[in-house]
Amino acid sequence: MASTEQPVDESSKAPVPEPKLARGPSFPPINLLWGDLALRLLLFASTLTGVVVMVTSKQTELLFPFPVTKTAKFNYSPAFIYFVVALSVACLYSILTITASIFFILKSSPSNKLLLLVVSVDALMAGLVASATGASASVAYIGLKGNSHVGWIKVCNIYHKFCRHIASSTALALVASIILLWLVLLSTFSIYRRIR
Amino acid sequence: MASTEQPVDESSKAPVPEPKLARGPSFPPINLLWGDLALRLLLFASTLTGVVVMVTSKQTELLFPFPVTKTAKFNYSPAFIYFVVALSVACLYSILTITASIFFILKSSPSNKLLLLVVSVDALMAGLVASATGASASVAYIGLKGNSHVGWIKVCNIYHKFCRHIASSTALALVASIILLWLVLLSTFSIYRRIR
Repeated sequence: MASTEQPVDESSKAPVPEPKLARGPSFPPINLLWGDLALRLLLFASTLTGVVVMVTSKQTELLFPFPVTKTAKFNYSPAFIYFVVALSVACLYSILTITASIFFILKSSPSNKLLLLVVSVDALMAGLVASATGASASVAYIGLKGNSHVGWIKVCNIYHKFCRHIASSTALALVASIILLWLVLLSTFSIYRRIR
Repeated sequence: MASTEQPVDESSKAPVPEPKLARGPSFPPINLLWGDLALRLLLFASTLTGVVVMVTSKQTELLFPFPVTKTAKFNYSPAFIYFVVALSVACLYSILTITASIFFILKSSPSNKLLLLVVSVDALMAGLVASATGASASVAYIGLKGNSHVGWIKVCNIYHKFCRHIASSTALALVASIILLWLVLLSTFSIYRRIR
């Protein structure tokens, strides 16, 4: 009886997955969900501030020698309009995912399928915000330096406040894209941890 | 004997990982490595063509009423220089990963750690190419429509060929960024498949 029981016991412990799964807890037990929430809060802050700073960039100046007032506004440039739309979408998305993140911390860990969906949308948002950053930065650069080859004059020597606002919101968008890239990596790492 | 064997047989199949792993083969057996290679070849083609089209955009025109020749070149705009650099980096990266992809098809599947690294760099490249697309598109739009608010004249009514080249290479960069987003998803999906 003992001799028949032993091989049965051996075979029941034979399948490979057991040690693989046992290796899991030896991995540093960082709670990735908290990191995810922190990054999403930062994303919310940076995108919201970026949008607000861009929208409040309006500046009116009295131009000489003909005393005429002229205004610089973000919506005079399609690139800046795209910027505001892209960052607003990312901001709304961050609110949505912050809610989801809090739910996952309080209730249960997200499923693998959901993590895959989150990686997809995070990557899409990263592309969106990165392209908005590029668009805004390139127009801002022309505003700052002009382009003598095609006769585009610089405007930042007149509209100081406007240009400061554009520069700040572009920097915030760059921060937001970096955060989104980190979020992609974090979610991928969460999936990766489950196979270890 | 039969009665003792039955419960033992039951308990040997009780651990959860077994059915989880057994579900693996029922998943559509698409070879993701081939898809990865195909996407990377497309990435190489789009980035290389994008760079070549941008670099060959030079156009010289005789301008009236003062008969003077003026040239439009991509390197007159920092945004287009950034575009060429970003797409060249993505092109070189695609060559590197095509080689790796072929190696993985011929020799062995990549490790999970390597897949995680690939996702990271793919996401970084997606951000880089997306920002280059945004930068190029926004400058091209000013060239096409001008901006009456700040007195930036349009140039595409003079430099037709130049603008066609810029538009084509921007479209190719957009394709490249979409391919890179797909690659991020594909690699994440490869990791995901290993837990199913």
